Amino acid sequence: MLFFENDYSEGAHPRVLQSLLETNLTPQPGYGEDGFTAAAREKIRAACQCPQADVYFIAGGTQANMTVIRAYLHPTEGVVAADTGHIACHEAGAVESTGHKVLTVPGHEGKMDAGDLENLLKAFYADPNHAHMVWPGMAYISHPTEYGTLYTAEELTGLSQVCAAYKIPLYVDGARLGYGLMSRGTDVTLPVLSAVCDCFTVGGTKVGALCGEALVFPKGAPRRFFTQVKQGGALLAKGRLLGAQFDALFTEDLYFEISRHADAMAEKMKRGIAALGYPLYLDSPTNQQFLVLTEGQLQRIGRRVRFSYWERLNETSSVVRFAVSWATTEEQVDALLQVLKEEKEAE
Amino acid sequence: MLFFENDYSEGAHPRVLQSLLETNLTPQPGYGEDGFTAAAREKIRAACQCPQADVYFIAGGTQANMTVIRAYLHPTEGVVAADTGHIACHEAGAVESTGHKVLTVPGHEGKMDAGDLENLLKAFYADPNHAHMVWPGMAYISHPTEYGTLYTAEELTGLSQVCAAYKIPLYVDGARLGYGLMSRGTDVTLPVLSAVCDCFTVGGTKVGALCGEALVFPKGAPRRFFTQVKQGGALLAKGRLLGAQFDALFTEDLYFEISRHADAMAEKMKRGIAALGYPLYLDSPTNQQFLVLTEGQLQRIGRRVRFSYWERLNETSSVVRFAVSWATTEEQVDALLQVLKEEKEAE
Amino acid sequence: MLFFENDYSEGAHPRVLQSLLETNLTPQPGYGEDGFTAAAREKIRAACQCPQADVYFIAGGTQANMTVIRAYLHPTEGVVAADTGHIACHEAGAVESTGHKVLTVPGHEGKMDAGDLENLLKAFYADPNHAHMVWPGMAYISHPTEYGTLYTAEELTGLSQVCAAYKIPLYVDGARLGYGLMSRGTDVTLPVLSAVCDCFTVGGTKVGALCGEALVFPKGAPRRFFTQVKQGGALLAKGRLLGAQFDALFTEDLYFEISRHADAMAEKMKRGIAALGYPLYLDSPTNQQFLVLTEGQLQRIGRRVRFSYWERLNETSSVVRFAVSWATTEEQVDALLQVLKEEKEAE
Amino acid sequence: MLFFENDYSEGAHPRVLQSLLETNLTPQPGYGEDGFTAAAREKIRAACQCPQADVYFIAGGTQANMTVIRAYLHPTEGVVAADTGHIACHEAGAVESTGHKVLTVPGHEGKMDAGDLENLLKAFYADPNHAHMVWPGMAYISHPTEYGTLYTAEELTGLSQVCAAYKIPLYVDGARLGYGLMSRGTDVTLPVLSAVCDCFTVGGTKVGALCGEALVFPKGAPRRFFTQVKQGGALLAKGRLLGAQFDALFTEDLYFEISRHADAMAEKMKRGIAALGYPLYLDSPTNQQFLVLTEGQLQRIGRRVRFSYWERLNETSSVVRFAVSWATTEEQVDALLQVLKEEKEAE
Repeated sequence: MLFFENDYSEGAHPRVLQSLLETNLTPQPGYGEDGFTAAAREKIRAACQCPQADVYFIAGGTQANMTVIRAYLHPTEGVVAADTGHIACHEAGAVESTGHKVLTVPGHEGKMDAGDLENLLKAFYADPNHAHMVWPGMAYISHPTEYGTLYTAEELTGLSQVCAAYKIPLYVDGARLGYGLMSRGTDVTLPVLSAVCDCFTVGGTKVGALCGEALVFPKGAPRRFFTQVKQGGALLAKGRLLGAQFDALFTEDLYFEISRHADAMAEKMKRGIAALGYPLYLDSPTNQQFLVLTEGQLQRIGRRVRFSYWERLNETSSVVRFAVSWATTEEQVDALLQVLKEEKEAE
Repeated sequence: MLFFENDYSEGAHPRVLQSLLETNLTPQPGYGEDGFTAAAREKIRAACQCPQADVYFIAGGTQANMTVIRAYLHPTEGVVAADTGHIACHEAGAVESTGHKVLTVPGHEGKMDAGDLENLLKAFYADPNHAHMVWPGMAYISHPTEYGTLYTAEELTGLSQVCAAYKIPLYVDGARLGYGLMSRGTDVTLPVLSAVCDCFTVGGTKVGALCGEALVFPKGAPRRFFTQVKQGGALLAKGRLLGAQFDALFTEDLYFEISRHADAMAEKMKRGIAALGYPLYLDSPTNQQFLVLTEGQLQRIGRRVRFSYWERLNETSSVVRFAVSWATTEEQVDALLQVLKEEKEAE
Repeated sequence: MLFFENDYSEGAHPRVLQSLLETNLTPQPGYGEDGFTAAAREKIRAACQCPQADVYFIAGGTQANMTVIRAYLHPTEGVVAADTGHIACHEAGAVESTGHKVLTVPGHEGKMDAGDLENLLKAFYADPNHAHMVWPGMAYISHPTEYGTLYTAEELTGLSQVCAAYKIPLYVDGARLGYGLMSRGTDVTLPVLSAVCDCFTVGGTKVGALCGEALVFPKGAPRRFFTQVKQGGALLAKGRLLGAQFDALFTEDLYFEISRHADAMAEKMKRGIAALGYPLYLDSPTNQQFLVLTEGQLQRIGRRVRFSYWERLNETSSVVRFAVSWATTEEQVDALLQVLKEEKEAE
Repeated sequence: MLFFENDYSEGAHPRVLQSLLETNLTPQPGYGEDGFTAAAREKIRAACQCPQADVYFIAGGTQANMTVIRAYLHPTEGVVAADTGHIACHEAGAVESTGHKVLTVPGHEGKMDAGDLENLLKAFYADPNHAHMVWPGMAYISHPTEYGTLYTAEELTGLSQVCAAYKIPLYVDGARLGYGLMSRGTDVTLPVLSAVCDCFTVGGTKVGALCGEALVFPKGAPRRFFTQVKQGGALLAKGRLLGAQFDALFTEDLYFEISRHADAMAEKMKRGIAALGYPLYLDSPTNQQFLVLTEGQLQRIGRRVRFSYWERLNETSSVVRFAVSWATTEEQVDALLQVLKEEKEAE
């Protein structure tokens, strides 16, 4: 069985594991006050060219999202997201469980349009009844999006300007950030992100770590963020587990290297799929590829490859996702394309 | 500098790390549906002699507590704890952040007395205004307690009977459970815990793992517990991280072996401390030892040993905690006792 | 200045005030255990032909909605509403503040379609990832809707059957229920509502009372509802205030009489408006009428009549609402129509 | 049967009802933007000698408490109260339901000691682990307390200074404020309260109104307080109901007059009770009197008088409360004393 189900099927990159091994018996203070966390923080600040950034580490993505969002919002406020945003769909109401509404604008292949955001804000303040409504208090986007698509630096700047005009923070969920940063043709870099948003995450779980997201606050973290992390159950006693991993990921550009590899594998896979005549659902420049399969294809290919079912497209076809990661080898991609080719030949 | 500050200063036991290494590149489904988690679950069920138990794994202790407590309580209910209980003091209001009050009874060296619990419940139902009050909806105890003390099986049974009489669940926070189970003279075992309570945790973070608590529900987990874990941000994409670690801890009795070692180190340390004439604050049979130091001792010893300040006892003295763990060596204990001896000789 | 701004511009119907005056100095227990509340409860049960119904009284509509919804939902669940539903728009995130998401389906002139609800439920359970999502845990509709429209008994039965099939409660927000029940041509009665839903409110604030909504639970109220009301701050010490008012409203059919009067005024107003050639935005059979005005009309009429701005329709026109109530007199409607006529003549 | 059970057994003072009658058919905007509310606000500002104060009106006391407390607290914070404080005991966990812990200090006949508050704050900041704990974010006291006792202006100033030193707001729950202000010997006035605290309530429900508490914020209300009131379900559509009542209460000193009467009745009752030899539980200078009855007295008197059971004192005796209000007549007090006298004679 081939695994293209997701980008968290394996453990950690060997150099990340090595870091855990080497640091294992060095005693350190708990709760993120260890030396490995301090080192990782400095390396991330350097990579962002943002020496004054606050950097925190949290084990999981939903946890990172709900902690950051709750920390920014006033009780009267909600967070604006694309209707396909992870927080709006697949986090089991985590944001709402902290008392805040997720306000939505239509997603465009997963992306939020700055004009849509501005219209929502403008309409809110123009509504004479707005004091009876949830105040839009921050904007949430993901980069890459849930559909693998990417914002341009200009689009991010556009969103950032709308947020600035309405004095609300912009938060970028970078659960798969590496795959976005290393995508061919993107002009979004860590310094760009540091310039345009109030907080972004650098996802580790899907990019080489066992677990962990780095939270970067270029202008400083919200008030008493440490206690908020603790209160949300998101503070690991052994913060070193996250620190040592991110220390490795940001040593000798490991994070970028493995992301570039995954993007190359994705591109090879995409080209191969297209060449075989399978229709792509959309044009993703990152590690997730969405294609359209008929019911029969879905069944037969499913016997040899694990992939993710995404959604029904119409009576006869569905959208599925094939994901690669830092761990995917060229051989695995070749094997997948061979399966897809045999399916085509058999039809 | 010697480290006796806590029991989470090092990484993981080598065999736990080994398990992560060996399983690292085997692809597995996410969210706890991997084979390592399944294996760990089975081993824990076997160790508990409770084949029907539901077993979940969660990264941290506060997270485990707040998730379990929220899952059991009705909106009108609170959780009863000793006033020294971790949830009542040192979890930054995590339980309250989910909407529930922590109701307290006086702790007795960290322990809850079954009579106190019964009186609280009896008084609640006898109060004609109780429908205007928070309903006591479950009982929370820690074993070992925050003071290192232990319940006897009889005491646990007493608490269990009170809970059963009032139809509320009993939850045991076992963040340091191994050190309790392997303490000389205890009659509390995993099967005993499985018999007396509705949920208990088997702490990994402080007993050989990088992170992770196993949640054991002998009679089954609360409704839709999986979604509740997800909603609380407590669901790791790579559940394998927890599964592989607990699989190692429950293979060839590793969890018990390393706990027994720590308890032996604690006993050696305790005997040595007492022999040197330092007063013990209370008689702890587990890996945390509390002693009384004068201000001068505190300052001088503090230059050579890291330990935890607990609380001021009176004008001239304070309570401090020296903790050992699975990672503490006999040499380290000897070195500590040497420091304490030199302090005594210099006085 | 004429007032057609809303249906809560005046105080209470004189017979409601009279009830407060007559009962004023009779001492009674607090918190809804008074005799007037008991009498009102019985009269409502009788009007519903549902002698076993639980009936509670709550001061306001948002409060009623949030208390009922929170009481029915499990922490993993959200409430399904039309996207124009009051809880989805104009209650400032009250439902989310209790930790629950409002899931939406498209409104059809304010109404929820049973097919839409069924599709949402079907799609949820068909989604292999649904355990990572908010569970649809109840359905909320308003009757009359926010657009004054009404369900037929058949439509309500359809929604009820979908809810029953998925074992979720159906809740009807009847803030303006009287105006719905007395509308010409409706086949929805209190007994019909009692048969099809798990809870409905009988709005008093907009139908003759100073404040107050009656909550009717034909099959019994959710667990410990009294404490939930108290916890939400919704329990009045002088429950008699609500009891005495509803006692009056349900004596000699006052609630129905005054609602019928308002509906007659609305119909007269609607016919007059249409005759004058103002376009109606939709065909409302109850006390709220929505029409389309040009910018100029809006300005000029607005100098002589208070009405509610609803929303911009297009470049040149907007939707506005003219509302009548139990307190509106025929003279006032005539005066309004005269203003509208003069406007037309001046154009 | 005589009623001394509480101070909310009757409806409203006749002049309050008269105000509702007179204003009944004057159309007004909703949600507290009516003219009666504006007038009441001005009169309260004048009575407080605090023209810049923000004044809001809310239907009930628990609602007022939870809304104000939530509005002041950061997510990391809790509210400090005496352990006998209403929010700590008898509001069904309303504060916790908004996510915040109630931190307690020992009550002294219901009162919080400034030294106790200071010690709690000092200890919190001195604790090296305080970032892992709930931050004390405001102080709550009641005046009169739940035991009818009163602070002196000096005591309030002491609490105020501690709060100022730690930059936390001081909130005074004045559910029975009138009875405190008119008590003989008190030096606490509305201007004193305006000077020492950040918010206090002027209770209407127990002092002549059908419902309603005025919330006075001498230095201005917390951010977007209107939306917070709405979100909590505490915004009445007919805000006029509260406005018209408080307008009457603050016209020609009605609030003070009726409070003075109640205090005189309480004093007569207290003197009579003491003269008959019934032991007082404590010395209350306001409308609630606490005495000690034997089991037999409790049963026999209970057949002729409704009073409140407070708590068991010892094996043979209990504490009970007799409350008077603005509505209590001299004849009723005489009748009560006669019952108590006959009981004594029969013993």
